[in-house]
Amino acid sequence: MNFLEERIVKDGIVKEGNVLKVDSFLNHQMDVALMDQIGEEFYKRFKNKKVTKILTIEASGIAIACSVARCFGVPMVFAKKSKSVNIDGDVFVAEVESFTHKNKNNVIVSKRFLSADDHVLIVDDFLANGCALQGLISIVESAGATVAGLGIAIEKGFQIGGRVIRNLGYHLESLAIVDSMDAATGSVEFREQK
Amino acid sequence: MNFLEERIVKDGIVKEGNVLKVDSFLNHQMDVALMDQIGEEFYKRFKNKKVTKILTIEASGIAIACSVARCFGVPMVFAKKSKSVNIDGDVFVAEVESFTHKNKNNVIVSKRFLSADDHVLIVDDFLANGCALQGLISIVESAGATVAGLGIAIEKGFQIGGRVIRNLGYHLESLAIVDSMDAATGSVEFREQK
Repeated sequence: MNFLEERIVKDGIVKEGNVLKVDSFLNHQMDVALMDQIGEEFYKRFKNKKVTKILTIEASGIAIACSVARCFGVPMVFAKKSKSVNIDGDVFVAEVESFTHKNKNNVIVSKRFLSADDHVLIVDDFLANGCALQGLISIVESAGATVAGLGIAIEKGFQIGGRVIRNLGYHLESLAIVDSMDAATGSVEFREQK
Repeated sequence: MNFLEERIVKDGIVKEGNVLKVDSFLNHQMDVALMDQIGEEFYKRFKNKKVTKILTIEASGIAIACSVARCFGVPMVFAKKSKSVNIDGDVFVAEVESFTHKNKNNVIVSKRFLSADDHVLIVDDFLANGCALQGLISIVESAGATVAGLGIAIEKGFQIGGRVIRNLGYHLESLAIVDSMDAATGSVEFREQK
């Protein structure tokens, strides 16, 4: 097990309905030392790629994205969720349908912060159905920029998101892939990764 | 001028209606080196206080809060905005009325992440009317915890928020206090601080 898998086993809570609560260290209360370790691990995995910008989506991706951006020495941009399209100026927009919440949100990034020259590493804390990530990919491509890769802290391997994104040919690295969970015993099975 | 005031003069954009856009470095695209400098400055100003937790509110406060939390070596917690009260478990709630958007939001923090023993440094990127900060103070006090202080990157000194919070007796530090702005010339006047 790597450092993140160990932390999930130690402090994650498995709830009914395949819910994995990691809010004591990853997405409500945050362990900044862990964020930095995640940042360094993504740097290790993507440092051979050209990366000019880190992109994430509000809110819980921001902490990880800051740590990754520090390692690469590049700016971080976070996409905003918006019910309405921001009328104040030029933005890239992706309409994202949430599988979980059964609603639609616009995800927006100002055109000033992504250009055709950018090589963008997309990062986020969670990947399940991949709706948010698909929106971020769409925004990068609207800008004519290049997706350098995608870095995810925790992927729910039994949901469709990771498979879709890998099938599309993107380089996706998930630090922990949960293949199954059991709320009765609290156990979590991780996928073996090389 | 300090480093943040200099950056505002260099990269901030003054718009009609007393709007100061700092989205190229502070709250949409983020300069992580600047976040770290802000974190170190807050550490310098509050290091004589007991601080066990950093609290902010999603989304743009998160990056600054991470940098501050790293300096203090304590966890960071971000409050979530929610239209409805989260029914999943015990949360501290503050109903916050937005002066700007003329709507109400609940701000919530899980009871697991704030206790009566905590000494909480509240940080955020902006302070104008102070609605969000008042909600965060209310949450810390609901927990029986102590507000160690409040650290703000940019305060709009011509709006009421800073005065209210100082009048209430809290130790509030704003790295840049904007006393006036002129959209025609693009100029920004900062308050002299010792």
